[in-house]
Amino acid sequence: MRTICFVVNSRANYARIKTAIVAAKSNKNFNTVVVLGASGLLFNYGSIEPIMKADGIEVDFRVYSVVSGDYPELMAKTTGLAIIELSSIFAKIQPDFVVSIADRYETLGTVIAASYMNIPVIHTQGGEISGSIDESVRHACTKLSHLHFPATEQSAKVIKQLGEDPKSIFVTGCPSIDVVKQATDMPISNVLSNYKGVGNELNYDGEYILVSQHSVTTSYLNARDQILQTLNAVQKLDMQTIWLWPNIDSGSDAISKLLREFREKNTENKITFYRNFSAEDYARILRKCSCIIGNSSSGIRESAFLGTPSVIVGERQFGREHGKNVIFVKHDSNEIFKAAVQQIRHGKYEGSDLFGTGDSGEKMISIIENFIPRIQKVFYRS
Amino acid sequence: MRTICFVVNSRANYARIKTAIVAAKSNKNFNTVVVLGASGLLFNYGSIEPIMKADGIEVDFRVYSVVSGDYPELMAKTTGLAIIELSSIFAKIQPDFVVSIADRYETLGTVIAASYMNIPVIHTQGGEISGSIDESVRHACTKLSHLHFPATEQSAKVIKQLGEDPKSIFVTGCPSIDVVKQATDMPISNVLSNYKGVGNELNYDGEYILVSQHSVTTSYLNARDQILQTLNAVQKLDMQTIWLWPNIDSGSDAISKLLREFREKNTENKITFYRNFSAEDYARILRKCSCIIGNSSSGIRESAFLGTPSVIVGERQFGREHGKNVIFVKHDSNEIFKAAVQQIRHGKYEGSDLFGTGDSGEKMISIIENFIPRIQKVFYRS
Amino acid sequence: MRTICFVVNSRANYARIKTAIVAAKSNKNFNTVVVLGASGLLFNYGSIEPIMKADGIEVDFRVYSVVSGDYPELMAKTTGLAIIELSSIFAKIQPDFVVSIADRYETLGTVIAASYMNIPVIHTQGGEISGSIDESVRHACTKLSHLHFPATEQSAKVIKQLGEDPKSIFVTGCPSIDVVKQATDMPISNVLSNYKGVGNELNYDGEYILVSQHSVTTSYLNARDQILQTLNAVQKLDMQTIWLWPNIDSGSDAISKLLREFREKNTENKITFYRNFSAEDYARILRKCSCIIGNSSSGIRESAFLGTPSVIVGERQFGREHGKNVIFVKHDSNEIFKAAVQQIRHGKYEGSDLFGTGDSGEKMISIIENFIPRIQKVFYRS
Amino acid sequence: MRTICFVVNSRANYARIKTAIVAAKSNKNFNTVVVLGASGLLFNYGSIEPIMKADGIEVDFRVYSVVSGDYPELMAKTTGLAIIELSSIFAKIQPDFVVSIADRYETLGTVIAASYMNIPVIHTQGGEISGSIDESVRHACTKLSHLHFPATEQSAKVIKQLGEDPKSIFVTGCPSIDVVKQATDMPISNVLSNYKGVGNELNYDGEYILVSQHSVTTSYLNARDQILQTLNAVQKLDMQTIWLWPNIDSGSDAISKLLREFREKNTENKITFYRNFSAEDYARILRKCSCIIGNSSSGIRESAFLGTPSVIVGERQFGREHGKNVIFVKHDSNEIFKAAVQQIRHGKYEGSDLFGTGDSGEKMISIIENFIPRIQKVFYRS
Repeated sequence: MRTICFVVNSRANYARIKTAIVAAKSNKNFNTVVVLGASGLLFNYGSIEPIMKADGIEVDFRVYSVVSGDYPELMAKTTGLAIIELSSIFAKIQPDFVVSIADRYETLGTVIAASYMNIPVIHTQGGEISGSIDESVRHACTKLSHLHFPATEQSAKVIKQLGEDPKSIFVTGCPSIDVVKQATDMPISNVLSNYKGVGNELNYDGEYILVSQHSVTTSYLNARDQILQTLNAVQKLDMQTIWLWPNIDSGSDAISKLLREFREKNTENKITFYRNFSAEDYARILRKCSCIIGNSSSGIRESAFLGTPSVIVGERQFGREHGKNVIFVKHDSNEIFKAAVQQIRHGKYEGSDLFGTGDSGEKMISIIENFIPRIQKVFYRS
Repeated sequence: MRTICFVVNSRANYARIKTAIVAAKSNKNFNTVVVLGASGLLFNYGSIEPIMKADGIEVDFRVYSVVSGDYPELMAKTTGLAIIELSSIFAKIQPDFVVSIADRYETLGTVIAASYMNIPVIHTQGGEISGSIDESVRHACTKLSHLHFPATEQSAKVIKQLGEDPKSIFVTGCPSIDVVKQATDMPISNVLSNYKGVGNELNYDGEYILVSQHSVTTSYLNARDQILQTLNAVQKLDMQTIWLWPNIDSGSDAISKLLREFREKNTENKITFYRNFSAEDYARILRKCSCIIGNSSSGIRESAFLGTPSVIVGERQFGREHGKNVIFVKHDSNEIFKAAVQQIRHGKYEGSDLFGTGDSGEKMISIIENFIPRIQKVFYRS
Repeated sequence: MRTICFVVNSRANYARIKTAIVAAKSNKNFNTVVVLGASGLLFNYGSIEPIMKADGIEVDFRVYSVVSGDYPELMAKTTGLAIIELSSIFAKIQPDFVVSIADRYETLGTVIAASYMNIPVIHTQGGEISGSIDESVRHACTKLSHLHFPATEQSAKVIKQLGEDPKSIFVTGCPSIDVVKQATDMPISNVLSNYKGVGNELNYDGEYILVSQHSVTTSYLNARDQILQTLNAVQKLDMQTIWLWPNIDSGSDAISKLLREFREKNTENKITFYRNFSAEDYARILRKCSCIIGNSSSGIRESAFLGTPSVIVGERQFGREHGKNVIFVKHDSNEIFKAAVQQIRHGKYEGSDLFGTGDSGEKMISIIENFIPRIQKVFYRS
Repeated sequence: MRTICFVVNSRANYARIKTAIVAAKSNKNFNTVVVLGASGLLFNYGSIEPIMKADGIEVDFRVYSVVSGDYPELMAKTTGLAIIELSSIFAKIQPDFVVSIADRYETLGTVIAASYMNIPVIHTQGGEISGSIDESVRHACTKLSHLHFPATEQSAKVIKQLGEDPKSIFVTGCPSIDVVKQATDMPISNVLSNYKGVGNELNYDGEYILVSQHSVTTSYLNARDQILQTLNAVQKLDMQTIWLWPNIDSGSDAISKLLREFREKNTENKITFYRNFSAEDYARILRKCSCIIGNSSSGIRESAFLGTPSVIVGERQFGREHGKNVIFVKHDSNEIFKAAVQQIRHGKYEGSDLFGTGDSGEKMISIIENFIPRIQKVFYRS
């Protein structure tokens, strides 16, 4: 029996790996260890342990690594602290594999701790292209990893270009699509009744839009201005709105502060703010919304599968592979407004399986089962 | 005036950046800040501050980051601690550029701290191919850096393959060649009189060999066996030997312990052990030795320029570009012995400027002077 | 000229040391270095750098040490991280003295870093008695410090009992009293206009109460229940209320969450919530309030001088020396309510100079000027 | 069943707690967890895990916390890192008690992590008086601890003076005496055959002296000069000598370096250097030696019980309670030499049970069994 250790660092991480964890836990050839760290443990960013518990996934180790403050140096410190703590956990449990998810900055801490300790690293969603520090982090993770699960063929090509062994690259799709597929229909008012949002009581069984916009770390000083453009566009749309608080990237405090000030001054607005949803509930909300606005990758990924109209704002998703359901705009309230109106009029797009067909988690685990890792990496020239 | 910050982490680092630091310090457009960290501060691994001082280079900040112990998890912890400390220094001095050297594991800490803080990172000696964790670290550093100074054309190609902006890649050669070129001739007995070696008093103005063999982190548990093969071959050669204690990579304690035990038991051997030399003195010793044996990259790099016969043992330099002066062998005392005998018989090779022509430091600084960095990195598909 | 380094970690810290910093800065025999750390840097806990700047005090070093999360283990981690960062700062600036303030948990980090480095530590407000982890931290700080500035004679006795050299103990009073004395009268509405509170617009030139209640770390799991009792009492009082968000002690998130939920549900309440005030403005608000309720030490200390009626709730200030203006009650809404009514009816008490006469900062600096520290501590038996 | 967690940080620590660990492990009311940290894990300072294993004590968690370098700031950093790591371990195992031993600087890290987390702390050997930073650390530990096991009545008095609850103080003696009592007689040559010393082969079944001298952190820059005085005295004595390498206190590198240089230059000396002995073997060596010289507390403690003549050099043990077998001298080779000659002539003293009667470990565990801790500490005025 081999020990496989998943390190989950945020609500977004979890949606993208959940079905793989479930598959590993139900496979008797694996001893599954789950580490929850970083913003995934923090109330303000949607602590996900209760959700994991409800999904039958126990957290074995908690890594409190987030150093408080809204400056990029604290993304660095958080990563440093995570390395210190994770290396102790890995030394204790001696895993045969460590699974690291996607491209958040603290992910690189997981990958460093494991690879330096000669533990084979499995990396999901490598090879994608985007903006923010994520772009650099993602590829650095690839270069320190031993097994790659890109979501798309195009991403697999990028990983090959990066000099990875072609035999270590498997296009599995993204497990977040598994969740979307599995999420049964349910009235949104029922969905929301399980969460504490702040804002006025509205009827979300009617039409609504969904907003999720994070800071772009490489231009985090503009975070406030950028969110203001989106907020103005949303107010002009004057529709019921479900708004997710931003993730923990530098600039998030500036975003949260502006949103809180807005709430204090505009008590009659049509927005309800939420910290978190389970992956399934998020899929339900995304499926029924008239349009998703912001720069969350769910506006690319899960939206493609669902055919949800999406307006992607700014550089955070710059260059990312996407379906026909996306319009890219600048941080300009007019552009955002126009694109949103156009998308809402268009309505649902045809769903695309660009990012997976709904069986990614299972695929990953069966590939790992047969994988014989080689610790010393070798560069493949193209 | 722009602030340029060099982070030097080891004796090897220093030889490979010294002339660039000197060039920056003598350029009035730069405010030069020097950070000395990791094993570069530790007596056991050849603390280099006295050497830097003698070269007129003051250390502005010291980062004590090495967590003691001979396990790979401590390479991870050391890197984590370095990130925590370096991010504070960078926040204090707000550099316009951070220069990170080559591929040691803690280097990645420098690159993370700076890139996460949106400080342009300049990386030297990217694009080379080798074994050990260095292979992964080097390319991960490239993916987080903004300006690249590969030593060779072939390395520049690898950096391009990695998706970097071609306009950010400049083949400068390696500043270690500058040092080799500048090092005037001097009797080796004079050179050695400045250093405290341990071992019997020998006459190094006669023939001698040079040994420098480090642990390979990706197979660090074999470090003791590996060094034993080399030690046996060296004893069989029965020549005067200058032996450098290993660097701090995991497995180094095992190597040092075996060498110390050997010394206790064999008081009549012909080996003198040294912790450190200045870059110039090392060049002098390398120039006159009959053969260098081990896995130090100086057996590839500086040796190419000097034409010094070199026997490279094991996987640490696997795949590395090299001159005609190198024979690669396995960790087998017979193979090592035979190759050494062959090299000593052959004598000096013709020098090659594969790794530079002796003006790399100056080149780097003049390129940086005109470089306008773009923080958000973009992937270039091939 | 000697370098004196003040380490300020919170808004409360700052009020208690400000006049000493000002005195040091205006004394040409001192080079004054100011380090701002921990919650003192965080918006949510009242970042004080803008206030310091307005007071003419520049921050020389910032120590972001707060590890996020509402568990006591994070008070420990925060202290550990502070030690790592502070020791680098002390190594860089080589101070002749480090000043550490009072008894917050992270204070012990300052004292450890300095005392381990053989830097004389000056500790203010030692010898007091209270509850929470502060009680243990305060005395541990005393045992690692070299010069003591207790606020009262009774505290000086405790320090002597702790075995400290009597010649190292000087009763100076508390600099927070200096600030209170200097704070000129001003309409409270003017005072508040400089701060962004959340809550309904009220007229604080009329009667109001002040609430400041923190978590007790030694029973932090009760923080929510404890604050609920106070909140209920305050609602029953039905007066205009200025409420300070809690400090960062474990349990604070639970307190903040309950207060936020209360605000969402009770939009018509008479409470305005503030994160921070300058020391002078806080003094102004405290001077004019009908009663202060909670467990802040300002309900003991500054209130004594001002004669402000005070209701101290629970164990946090257990055993603390105090004036006649204080009633101690349990965490019971009825008790709190009754005591508050009694105090409001009583009105202002006569002011007491128990904690100082308003010249503490100056006194401290002139004592330090003549102090010749001895690094090796010696125990004095009673 | 209650979980008791012992944190052992050095070879000296272990000798002083071993019998208590053994007693806890054989008591079915306790779940015993052993954490090994700091220099206790490092080969250069006598890694004790093999010795513990031979004693039937498994290490459950390892804390690599030692930051390399010979500066006091690194004692601080090491303590900071220990806090970060230990708090994670305590969070994982949720112990009912944490046992912290004596007064080494990193001990304070154990005590902070546990006490901040509201875990009752048991502290051994509080209330003693000495020099070095240990003096401050020991009393700071007392002020953060909940149950005290002083070795002597006089130490118990000091703890009472420090304001601790008299009901929490139990004079148990020191478990190191248990070990001494249990250590059966054995020829010293047999004892030594289990250890790798460096030096010439001598016959230790004849007369010999024992030297163990550590750095005094509060004057660590004098460490080299101080050890030189002792070394000169020992050479003048011209007896067979068993010399223990120093512990990890700042200044130890300077000591080790001087001793290594001495060895290189004086190959014909009569000294054998050892890194470590099991507690029992150390007792055997101490019992039969003609005199112990240096500043190890074993020259006070175990020596008192055995009646071994002891010469204590310098301030490290300044003020410490001791038996009649001790002569205190300054760091002066003449004084040391004379005192040693006097002690060797005198020969064995009568043994004293000042520090225990040989049942301390058992006593401690039975007291803990019945102890009901109160987390909130209260100060007891004398």
